Amino acid sequence: MSDIISIPFILVNLKTYVESMGERAVKLAKIAEEVSSSLNVCIGLAPQIVDLSRVAESTKIPVFAQHIDPAPPGKFTGHVLPEAVKNCGAVGTMLNHSERRMRIADIEAAVARARQVGLYTVVFANNARVTAATAALEPDMVAVEPPELIGTGIPVSKAKPEVITNTIDLVKKVNPRIPVLCGAGITSGEDVSRALELGASGIAVASGVVKAKDPRSVLLEFAKAVRRAET
Amino acid sequence: MSDIISIPFILVNLKTYVESMGERAVKLAKIAEEVSSSLNVCIGLAPQIVDLSRVAESTKIPVFAQHIDPAPPGKFTGHVLPEAVKNCGAVGTMLNHSERRMRIADIEAAVARARQVGLYTVVFANNARVTAATAALEPDMVAVEPPELIGTGIPVSKAKPEVITNTIDLVKKVNPRIPVLCGAGITSGEDVSRALELGASGIAVASGVVKAKDPRSVLLEFAKAVRRAET
Amino acid sequence: MSDIISIPFILVNLKTYVESMGERAVKLAKIAEEVSSSLNVCIGLAPQIVDLSRVAESTKIPVFAQHIDPAPPGKFTGHVLPEAVKNCGAVGTMLNHSERRMRIADIEAAVARARQVGLYTVVFANNARVTAATAALEPDMVAVEPPELIGTGIPVSKAKPEVITNTIDLVKKVNPRIPVLCGAGITSGEDVSRALELGASGIAVASGVVKAKDPRSVLLEFAKAVRRAET
Amino acid sequence: MSDIISIPFILVNLKTYVESMGERAVKLAKIAEEVSSSLNVCIGLAPQIVDLSRVAESTKIPVFAQHIDPAPPGKFTGHVLPEAVKNCGAVGTMLNHSERRMRIADIEAAVARARQVGLYTVVFANNARVTAATAALEPDMVAVEPPELIGTGIPVSKAKPEVITNTIDLVKKVNPRIPVLCGAGITSGEDVSRALELGASGIAVASGVVKAKDPRSVLLEFAKAVRRAET
Repeated sequence: MSDIISIPFILVNLKTYVESMGERAVKLAKIAEEVSSSLNVCIGLAPQIVDLSRVAESTKIPVFAQHIDPAPPGKFTGHVLPEAVKNCGAVGTMLNHSERRMRIADIEAAVARARQVGLYTVVFANNARVTAATAALEPDMVAVEPPELIGTGIPVSKAKPEVITNTIDLVKKVNPRIPVLCGAGITSGEDVSRALELGASGIAVASGVVKAKDPRSVLLEFAKAVRRAET
Repeated sequence: MSDIISIPFILVNLKTYVESMGERAVKLAKIAEEVSSSLNVCIGLAPQIVDLSRVAESTKIPVFAQHIDPAPPGKFTGHVLPEAVKNCGAVGTMLNHSERRMRIADIEAAVARARQVGLYTVVFANNARVTAATAALEPDMVAVEPPELIGTGIPVSKAKPEVITNTIDLVKKVNPRIPVLCGAGITSGEDVSRALELGASGIAVASGVVKAKDPRSVLLEFAKAVRRAET
Repeated sequence: MSDIISIPFILVNLKTYVESMGERAVKLAKIAEEVSSSLNVCIGLAPQIVDLSRVAESTKIPVFAQHIDPAPPGKFTGHVLPEAVKNCGAVGTMLNHSERRMRIADIEAAVARARQVGLYTVVFANNARVTAATAALEPDMVAVEPPELIGTGIPVSKAKPEVITNTIDLVKKVNPRIPVLCGAGITSGEDVSRALELGASGIAVASGVVKAKDPRSVLLEFAKAVRRAET
Repeated sequence: MSDIISIPFILVNLKTYVESMGERAVKLAKIAEEVSSSLNVCIGLAPQIVDLSRVAESTKIPVFAQHIDPAPPGKFTGHVLPEAVKNCGAVGTMLNHSERRMRIADIEAAVARARQVGLYTVVFANNARVTAATAALEPDMVAVEPPELIGTGIPVSKAKPEVITNTIDLVKKVNPRIPVLCGAGITSGEDVSRALELGASGIAVASGVVKAKDPRSVLLEFAKAVRRAET
């Protein structure tokens, strides 16, 4: 599935902010698409599950679910079926975000189910060791986010650079093919540059874009940082 | 919110069956709308969360979420925000279905959040006593479903009529204004008639409609049973 | 089981404080026993599950588990079997404490299992409405504790007296036979007096006793407040 | 902590069987101690948490908790504090058994907490890939048990030998120092021999011993199989 996502990758998680709900999610998708297209940087968007089909229909950039359940089709009222996520046009899913932590056996089963239906997986984790463990579950990508920095505006790449480098080292030992994103507190192009310099294959961001006065200019700054890193 | 839902009420839960996913959910909504309109019986539909907006846009019948989370807007990746459910056109939500059981404090909080954003609530429970307890949380409606009969085709109204009558008795003591649905194993008009005779304010159904060879004829049979009960 | 517990009742929850672990739990049980005996006030103690048998063997006062699971005997590794709790000498169990919230169906099942093996149940809840709902599950006693006051030293009986009176009113409507404890922030005899004046059948306390410089004098103060209330 | 546990290791999980509760747990511990001592084979016992202190006091063989919570001391009513487990004489803990699955971040935190207080950790998992992932969390030992075989009497070492060999291969790549137990369906010495031949560092057993007519003869058979394997 490497043709869907190119690296460095920027993943924008819309969480359950009202600022990024419904039509606003569609609008953010259009902004992300413009920036992605003009600077040729891969940007993905993870709207609320409720908004997934609406957003997927309205954009060409890769759209991710924020979570899927490992359950098979059938009697699973209230669960998020991988087939339904794929069916509505999403290309992948986040798993085990610190706001939606999963049991280890369920992460493995969800990764397998995602592969079965053709969804790309990004498994999140809270520190280097847990990220390395998730890498053994063979997802397409992993992402490390120290929970204490999420939503703070204090960038992991500046405040805890060793989390990024340790994670990359440990993941490499377990499975050297798996790209590592980092996230938490990222709000500026400089934060992105720093993350890439440390070896990250991209970044995950939420409030840094969603809560920004001008999400377009933030995304532009991020994308330019990515472009600079590649030259 | 009594103008949204009229009693007797038929609630069709699409669960995560592939037979009721995506476009098939829209098709089932259209069938339900026709039957509802031609026989003047209130039929609600609860598609997968992923399909919620698509279904809500395509029909006039009341559309329900299968679950909402009690969380406020914000940092709740992978959760189902009540505001997002309302925003996409749904009129209500199921809560605490036996395939998605909730902590009691979360049910109460979810009912309160639903009321806050204007969503109608149907709280499910597994037996008479638990249903009575949920009635104390002041939802708009409750539903009792013995889990051992769900999806069996053995109708609760025939196999365990005392579950329905006991539930109605206990709920009445706690809160006499709350209508009681019953469900599990209902596949025929006779099952519906029996449930209404026992005092239920309607029924909840899933596989009985979704897995039927001809969902339209099943829904028609159900609706006719409702009409007969009213005369 | 009304012969085990007399009202007004003081329930001391040892939580997982190191100050109340192992031999210190036994010591606190002896202090509680002395105070209980000298002032003829019913005091119960809920040590950690690990310490349950050790404490139950060493005291005559009623010993409670902090939690049981609703599971039957068998393949439930890591769960707390009601039979095992009974077998080690405990007389009852707490359920659904705000630090160990349960699904509503599991609370009902746990209450039924406790009754089956002869354990007294005290179901905790976070507000008036949820407490009333738990009363419909027919436990022996309920307890209301606003989570935001737990461990603060700001007594619920002073800061939020309406929580206590509303809870008593709502519980009375659902099941007038069920005594209502209140807890959160209680540290002085005055707090206890206030709670009893408001109609509570006793109090639940943790840090107010466990973290006190002199737990004996605190318990004595509590017991005296109970005695005064009865005259 | 390699001096506590020697390899090959037999871990007897008493689950929540009534046959292995209270005094019967103590009796089983004595039997295990005799067998362990007479054949010089390391046998550990994991009684219910309620029985932990009673069993630990009565035996010299290594006693394990069936589960600990990762929480620090304090406000965690109903949780299993690592310090309390250590304090009562247990030497280690099982984690993530298929009947008590944990979130990945909680497994990592529980392993770290266990190390902090001096408890040996055996992390269970349901298949080769998940076991490899848990190995990245740096526990002292891992154990693979296909859930579909647990309690069946169909031994994993015969029915699914490839699960054992694949697990050992994958764990070796992640962390070659971590011994791998296997379990599920093991009831005879032959099953144990087979497991050791396949490369396992020991076995986990529950009903095979607890539900046996003569637990002593079963444990003797297991221990002899271990002795034979070493020569």
